[in-house]
Amino acid sequence: MEEPLHHLGARESLALMTAHGISAADMAKAFGERIAAREADIRAWAYCDPEAVMRRAEQGDTMGALDGLLIGIKDNFDTADMPTAYGSRFYEGHRPASDAAAVAILRANGAILAGKTVCTEFAAWPVSKTRNPHSSARTPGGSSSGSAAAVADHMISVALGTQTLGSVVRPASYCGVVGFKPSYGRISRVGVKPLAESLDTVGVLSRNVGDAELIYRVLSGDERRASASPRIHVCRGLNWDLADEDAKAAFEAFVAKLGAAVALKDWHYPGFFTQLAAAARTIHDFEVYRGFTFERTSAPEKLSPSFVQGLERGRGCTAPDYEAAVEQGRDGRNQFVGEMGDGSVVITLSATGEAPAYETGTGDPVFNSSWTLLHAPCLTIPVLAGASGMPIGLQIVAPKFRDAEVLHAAAWLHDFARGL
Amino acid sequence: MEEPLHHLGARESLALMTAHGISAADMAKAFGERIAAREADIRAWAYCDPEAVMRRAEQGDTMGALDGLLIGIKDNFDTADMPTAYGSRFYEGHRPASDAAAVAILRANGAILAGKTVCTEFAAWPVSKTRNPHSSARTPGGSSSGSAAAVADHMISVALGTQTLGSVVRPASYCGVVGFKPSYGRISRVGVKPLAESLDTVGVLSRNVGDAELIYRVLSGDERRASASPRIHVCRGLNWDLADEDAKAAFEAFVAKLGAAVALKDWHYPGFFTQLAAAARTIHDFEVYRGFTFERTSAPEKLSPSFVQGLERGRGCTAPDYEAAVEQGRDGRNQFVGEMGDGSVVITLSATGEAPAYETGTGDPVFNSSWTLLHAPCLTIPVLAGASGMPIGLQIVAPKFRDAEVLHAAAWLHDFARGL
Repeated sequence: MEEPLHHLGARESLALMTAHGISAADMAKAFGERIAAREADIRAWAYCDPEAVMRRAEQGDTMGALDGLLIGIKDNFDTADMPTAYGSRFYEGHRPASDAAAVAILRANGAILAGKTVCTEFAAWPVSKTRNPHSSARTPGGSSSGSAAAVADHMISVALGTQTLGSVVRPASYCGVVGFKPSYGRISRVGVKPLAESLDTVGVLSRNVGDAELIYRVLSGDERRASASPRIHVCRGLNWDLADEDAKAAFEAFVAKLGAAVALKDWHYPGFFTQLAAAARTIHDFEVYRGFTFERTSAPEKLSPSFVQGLERGRGCTAPDYEAAVEQGRDGRNQFVGEMGDGSVVITLSATGEAPAYETGTGDPVFNSSWTLLHAPCLTIPVLAGASGMPIGLQIVAPKFRDAEVLHAAAWLHDFARGL
Repeated sequence: MEEPLHHLGARESLALMTAHGISAADMAKAFGERIAAREADIRAWAYCDPEAVMRRAEQGDTMGALDGLLIGIKDNFDTADMPTAYGSRFYEGHRPASDAAAVAILRANGAILAGKTVCTEFAAWPVSKTRNPHSSARTPGGSSSGSAAAVADHMISVALGTQTLGSVVRPASYCGVVGFKPSYGRISRVGVKPLAESLDTVGVLSRNVGDAELIYRVLSGDERRASASPRIHVCRGLNWDLADEDAKAAFEAFVAKLGAAVALKDWHYPGFFTQLAAAARTIHDFEVYRGFTFERTSAPEKLSPSFVQGLERGRGCTAPDYEAAVEQGRDGRNQFVGEMGDGSVVITLSATGEAPAYETGTGDPVFNSSWTLLHAPCLTIPVLAGASGMPIGLQIVAPKFRDAEVLHAAAWLHDFARGL
C-alpha cells in the first residue's frame, strides 16, 4: 500500500478495518506516530495518551457503525476519562463526572477517542497555542483550533468542534479542511461547556464531505439524503466589503467556472440581513457575560486578560438589546426559509480571506455569525486559495434543517472543484 | 411582632434586614427551625446544612439587592459547595466544579443558599420523595417538587425551579404557591443539568408575585415594568377536555367574578395549537433520549426503571418527527405574537385539577407544555380551589419576552382575588 495509513479518511479506515485485515490497533499506531512526529510543531492536542488509545484499540469491541474509528474531541466536550479544561486555566486538570452526549453516542457506536483537541479559552476569542499546519506563522483559526489543525495535518481523520459565531467553518477554511456546522439543535450539546446557548452548535471537521456526513448521521439520527441537483444561489455577502481582494477574486474565478457548467443565480438577500452579524454579536456578548458569572466572580485571576476584557462587552448589553437581537434572528430565519425554495443552497466565502498572522488573533467570524444566528447548516470545502497560496473555503448554506441538501451540494461542489 | 419570621416573603425579609435590626442570622435561624420542624413530613430538601447556612449568614457581607436573603435551589443546578445529584442515584454525592450561572448571580447579589431542594430524577417524570404540604397523600407535582413544597410550607420564601414541560407551573399550582416560568432564554441555564435543551427554562417559586419578580429581575437583567391595564383573554384550552370538572367550575366562577369587574374576551386559538402539547412531547422525548446517552450506556443500573422506560419513548422518534415538532413550535410562536396585541395576556388553568394521589405520579403537564414550547412567560397564582379544597392555580400567559406584562397582570389578578 503506497498511501500511509494516517492519510486515510474515516470511511476509508472503516472499510479497511472491516474487510482488509487492518486492525484498529494498526490505525491507532499509524495516527499515534503521526501525532508524535508533528505535535511539537502543530500543538493541536490538549490531551493525548497514545498508550491508552492503543489499549482501547486492542480491545477490538464490535459495537456499531464506527468500530475502531479514531476521533478527536474538542476540549470543550466533557470526557469522564480524560481531563477537560475547556481551554482554560480555570479548569486545569478538571475531570468531569460524565461524557458529553455526543461523545457517548460516538463511543456507543464503536469510535475510539484519540484525545482532546486544543480549544481557545472557553471556546471564545483568546488565542490558543495551536499553529496553522500550512504556515506556522499563521493562526489555525478558532475556537476549534486543534480539531482543524489536527485534521489538516493528518493527525486524525475526523474531529468534533463547536461553533458559536464561526468556530467550525472559519478554522476549517484557514486550515484547508471540510468543516460542517449542522442546523442549530441537530446534535445534542449536553456536556459541552456553554459559551452562548442561543448559538452554540456541535460540528464536525474532516478532509472530505462524506466523512463529516457519516459522523453527522450517527450524532443526529438524520438519515435522509438529498438527490436532486442543487439550485445554487451565489451570495456576495453578507458584509462582503470585509472580504480581502484576493479572496473575492478566488471566489469570482470559481463562480465563473461553475457558471460555465451549471445554472447559477445571484441572490440578493433581504437588506436587514446585513445587521444579523451585529445581532449575533449582541446575543453572544449578553449570554457569555451572564454564563460565566461563577468564573468571573470566584477566581477572575484564572481568566486571561483577553477573556475578561471580552466579558465586559456583555455587561453593557441590556435585556431590550438582547431581545431585539433574538427577534432579528427569528425574523431572519422566517425570511430565509421564504427566500430559498426546496433544493436551493447559497454559496459564499467561508472566511474573509487567508488565515491571518498568528499574533493577530484567530480571525474574524463575520462571514459565519449571521448564518449561525439563522440556525443554518453551513459547510465549508477547501476549494479556493488566496494570494499567498493559503487555503480559503467555499461555504454552502441552506435554511435550518436542510442539512441533507447542504451535504449533497457540498459533495457535488467538492467533486466539481477536484475535476477542474 | 405577631407573624413568625419564616412567614415573611422575600421582599419583606429584605426590608426588615435593611431597616429594622433583624439580621441575616435571625432569618437563617427562623427558617432553619421551620425546616427542622417540618422536613420529616414534607421531605423537600435534597441537601440542607443549617449550620453552614448560619455561618454564612453571620458573615453579613454586603453585596447587593439580595443581601442575606435565603433561597432554595433545585437540585438540578450545579453548586460547587453542595452535593448535586440531579435527583438521581447516578450522581449521588456528585460535587460539581462550579456553580450554575443563576446560582452565581444570586450569590453575587448577596443571596444565601439555604440548600438544594428535591427534584425528581433528572428533573424528569419519576416520583420524588416530597409530599404535598396541603395533604401528605398527594403529590406536590414535579419536577420542582421540593422547591414548590418548601415555599408552600414556609420553609423558605423563594426557590429556583426549572420547567421543561410543566415543572414549575404545575407543582406551584398543586402546592398553592406562585410559580413563574419566564420566556425561554431569559435566564442563563449554564450549569443546569439539561433535560431537553429546546424547552428547559429556569423559573422561580414564591408566595407572591412581587417576590418572583424580584428574583427574575436579578437573574435576567430585565428591568422593565408594565403599567397599562392588562387586556385579558380567557382561554378554555388548550386540551380543555382533559381538565377535571371541579377545576373547570372553579375557573368559570372566577372568570364570572372577574368579568363583572373588567372587560374580558374569549380567545379562540388557532386550531393547530391543540397539537402543540404533542409536539412538545416529541421534542422532549427525542432530546432526552440522546442527552442521556452517557448515563444509559455507562451505568443503566443506576437509573430507575421508570426513567429507563421513559427514555425508550425517544428511541423511536425520528429526525423528521423531531423537525416537524420544532417547526410547529416556530409556527405557533409566530402566530401567538400575531394573535396577542400589546398588553394582552391569556388566562387559563395552570393544571388539569387538584394534585393527584402521591402514588400515581407527579401529574399531567398537558396544560403547561404547549406554552413552554411557545417560549411564553407563564405565571401561576394560587387563587382557585378544587372540590377537596386543594389549591389550583390560575395561569397567566403572553407571547415570548412579554414577561413584564405577565408579571403586571398576575400581580393585579392576585390582588383582585384577595379582595373577593
